[in-house]
Amino acid sequence: MYIDVVFSPYEFTSRGDITNKSVIVIDVLRATSTIAYALWGYRENDVDEILGCSGIIPVETIEEARNLAKNFEKGEVLLAGERFCLKPEGFDLGNSPKDYEPEKIKGKTIIFSTTNGTRALKLAKEAKYITTAAFVNATACTDNVYEMQNDVLILCAGRSNKTTREDTCCAGLLVELLIKRCQENKQNYELSDAADIALRFFNHYKSDIEPMLESSEAGRNLIEVNLREDIKDCSLIDLLSVVTEYKDGYIKLKS
Amino acid sequence: MYIDVVFSPYEFTSRGDITNKSVIVIDVLRATSTIAYALWGYRENDVDEILGCSGIIPVETIEEARNLAKNFEKGEVLLAGERFCLKPEGFDLGNSPKDYEPEKIKGKTIIFSTTNGTRALKLAKEAKYITTAAFVNATACTDNVYEMQNDVLILCAGRSNKTTREDTCCAGLLVELLIKRCQENKQNYELSDAADIALRFFNHYKSDIEPMLESSEAGRNLIEVNLREDIKDCSLIDLLSVVTEYKDGYIKLKS
Repeated sequence: MYIDVVFSPYEFTSRGDITNKSVIVIDVLRATSTIAYALWGYRENDVDEILGCSGIIPVETIEEARNLAKNFEKGEVLLAGERFCLKPEGFDLGNSPKDYEPEKIKGKTIIFSTTNGTRALKLAKEAKYITTAAFVNATACTDNVYEMQNDVLILCAGRSNKTTREDTCCAGLLVELLIKRCQENKQNYELSDAADIALRFFNHYKSDIEPMLESSEAGRNLIEVNLREDIKDCSLIDLLSVVTEYKDGYIKLKS
Repeated sequence: MYIDVVFSPYEFTSRGDITNKSVIVIDVLRATSTIAYALWGYRENDVDEILGCSGIIPVETIEEARNLAKNFEKGEVLLAGERFCLKPEGFDLGNSPKDYEPEKIKGKTIIFSTTNGTRALKLAKEAKYITTAAFVNATACTDNVYEMQNDVLILCAGRSNKTTREDTCCAGLLVELLIKRCQENKQNYELSDAADIALRFFNHYKSDIEPMLESSEAGRNLIEVNLREDIKDCSLIDLLSVVTEYKDGYIKLKS
């Protein structure tokens, strides 16, 4: 199994043919964390049951989200997303995990406007399988991807096409988990240089995920607008058994 | 002082205006290592004296190198570079540090064909100051860049626009050296997320630079064509007091 990481979307084009690969998109603060919570249903306790939305349609712009919503019956969809960390005017939900409580979202379709995450998902559209990951569903994601036995490309969404510490660190965790599965099964694996860099970075911060997130550029922005608790929600490794699939424009729980 | 790192040329375009910055280009295996040796003159011992070439003109293609040579008097220039690790037909020098002995190169102009390194240098052309670095001249480079007091962007040449472990590791060393100078002078500094990632990666491999280089994709290619000793030559931290400047198409010793 060849395990590769791309630190930012611009570098993605150097990877060539991905049609036989599983691509894992990461946008820890906050899109792929919030996606996991939205599909599960956000709760402080009793997180055993699936009480989430029926699917998420990622779009890049606020306007795209508003236009797309017109194709749905009222009450069937919710508009969600952020601009400068906050909920856009007239939207139902922001980009905070805690916005996605079962009573608001259960069974609904969510049109989710996120710049970096959506750009990364669209880049990956030729891949054999596309999924999303964050710290909150790391092992669920890698267990599933390992079972598929494709070569793996972990694509960090980054921030305005720049490398971010939070996505790189989470990529390193996924690399570590995939290596563990390969070793358990006495399977050969090869890491790209970038995968090795991500692995070492995760190992440096593995006991300090929350402070690492707080010190990131995205983290500092969240703290400025009083969303520090979102950082905590995004830092909890393996809280959720969520396995996602991005297919035909929708992110859903993998059946 | 803001210290930033770009892992591969594609990501460079996300950095915007660089006209007030010092840019350090890194291509450890082997362009920027060999450039340092070429400007100094390669010797096994007695490396105190400057016995190198008078200047280096980096170009991207073999054809460009051959065409450019026609503008010079015979004996004034040497053609240098590589394709698939080896010296191109009819060229005077390859891309091995040991090719650049004083008796061959002293006082001459070298037209140097290198894909990744040249691409990176050209990307940086709007910068206030452009220099090159490798393990062999790390401290000389950062001491000079620190004195200039511009914000610093370290640009890894990468390999076919992909992130490489050797350039990232060397970038991390430069970050560490710049931090040290800031701390000695009680000067504030800020690291980008990418700079922090490079720093942690260097710290993981700092006692194992040569094995790290051997395990890289570029390193394995060099070993395959019996150029393992080039890796050793490129691994020697601070062997040379070379400070370079890229200006008006030439790389020269900074006066």
